[in-house]
Amino acid sequence: MKQFRAAIIGYGNIGKYVLEAIQASPDFEVAGIVRRNPADKPEAIAGLEVVDDIKKLKDVDVAILCTPTRSVEAHAKEILSLGINTVDSFDIHGKIVDLRRALDKVAKANNSVAVISAGWDPGSDSVVRTLLEACAPKGITYTNFGPGMSMGHTVAVKAIQGVKAALSMTIPLGTGVHRRMVYIEVADGFDFKTVADHIKSDDYFAHDETHVFQVPSVDELKDMGHGVNLVRKGVSGDTQNQLFEFNMKINNPALTAQILIAVARASFKQQAGAYTMIELPPVDMLYGDKETLINKLV
Amino acid sequence: MKQFRAAIIGYGNIGKYVLEAIQASPDFEVAGIVRRNPADKPEAIAGLEVVDDIKKLKDVDVAILCTPTRSVEAHAKEILSLGINTVDSFDIHGKIVDLRRALDKVAKANNSVAVISAGWDPGSDSVVRTLLEACAPKGITYTNFGPGMSMGHTVAVKAIQGVKAALSMTIPLGTGVHRRMVYIEVADGFDFKTVADHIKSDDYFAHDETHVFQVPSVDELKDMGHGVNLVRKGVSGDTQNQLFEFNMKINNPALTAQILIAVARASFKQQAGAYTMIELPPVDMLYGDKETLINKLV
Repeated sequence: MKQFRAAIIGYGNIGKYVLEAIQASPDFEVAGIVRRNPADKPEAIAGLEVVDDIKKLKDVDVAILCTPTRSVEAHAKEILSLGINTVDSFDIHGKIVDLRRALDKVAKANNSVAVISAGWDPGSDSVVRTLLEACAPKGITYTNFGPGMSMGHTVAVKAIQGVKAALSMTIPLGTGVHRRMVYIEVADGFDFKTVADHIKSDDYFAHDETHVFQVPSVDELKDMGHGVNLVRKGVSGDTQNQLFEFNMKINNPALTAQILIAVARASFKQQAGAYTMIELPPVDMLYGDKETLINKLV
Repeated sequence: MKQFRAAIIGYGNIGKYVLEAIQASPDFEVAGIVRRNPADKPEAIAGLEVVDDIKKLKDVDVAILCTPTRSVEAHAKEILSLGINTVDSFDIHGKIVDLRRALDKVAKANNSVAVISAGWDPGSDSVVRTLLEACAPKGITYTNFGPGMSMGHTVAVKAIQGVKAALSMTIPLGTGVHRRMVYIEVADGFDFKTVADHIKSDDYFAHDETHVFQVPSVDELKDMGHGVNLVRKGVSGDTQNQLFEFNMKINNPALTAQILIAVARASFKQQAGAYTMIELPPVDMLYGDKETLINKLV
């Protein structure tokens, strides 16, 4: 048996990549998968325990929440109450402090640990932003996203009448300004121009430069790559013009999944309570002997 | 009185920038400066307490070691024994684990905290390297330095007979390979070509592409700017080709000094013992209320 047994809660896009990340980790094994319909067992999980309730799984150390963001709090509270650690990628930026407070209470009462909002943004980008504030306390940080698919904006387009299928791509224009490139299939009986105008006047798009295109198949355009360009120009002590930049070009769900496993590992080294990634010692996310890691990385 | 009183140990290049960083920090004030000759009081420190022994300063919470790397261990042990926290930028990569062990023992025995090897490399670069290993556990990281002055190589050149003054610049060629651009003033009675050949065959330079130039004044070429380009290409779970890059262009001593203050702040939130930067929760380095910081940065 490996060191940690992880349950995957939800087997959608992120859940699939979490399974791969667990299988690639020397210290983790899959305790099982929890999904609404456990009879739905695609080939990739044929050999695994699939159940509709985490209580049916044996010896779970940590639950990796791969459910929609809005259901994270309910799932986490329930699982933390069982004394099982949780990790999630809750991504509603304005509500992270509230979630942390709510889960902190439950975790402390049940001697468990929650790591919340762990992915790449919020997540590893948050760690970089924090580090750069330490390096240059005065200054401005811009986080530029893309090119890549925006889940939130794509959902917003799909909600507009006359849209059969949609994809909203985020294009970075620098200094935190983004262009929206929206690709749609138009439903029968609707006029493209009218639908496009509705999209452009929707609150999600009205404030950004937005271009809408009609395509025969949205599915053919989909690619899970994403990117970040994070820049800070600031002041160290009295010294101006300190320049920092962090870039990445990554498979979005694969990175989120890998980071969920890293913080799951770190969760076992924290005291009971709820944490965001900027509260975790970075070395705790890695597999291996601490002195060996210090020797290699510091 | 501000929250933390810091003593500056050594008032050389780094010490001067540490003073600026303390003065720019809302929560720190200068307890005093410790130097061999306390009568040596340039204008910038005229109003400050300058002494030859930290015991002569009042209410010191933390000592910022700005002394040469090789004297860090002795200074830190003495100060930690007084129950005062220490931070240093010890930069001999192969000996960091040994220093950590030695100071950990003294710190634990005296209920104090040491943060060691804090600067930009080792330091903030170490945090980025650790974070990127968490993001993509398999793969290769290259840290490319420069363009900027290498202290170690400059000292090595100065030690060669016939060199009156020297500057060794590190130029990044990618994948961790560096070119050395060496500028020297030649002492009277020595032949440039002979001296240059000695430099190129020195162990510090023999393995790198090295160019040596004779100049009328080394001092006129000196600039404290430095740079880093840190890249990692790796695997998240089963997904190849995840690409990450961290760049900075900075004033070298100013950044080191600012980071020393950040980890001094973090030292007060750790339990007794010795830590490298990859063992500190990043948020602990920042001034301000934790929930406010989480709300802003996560």
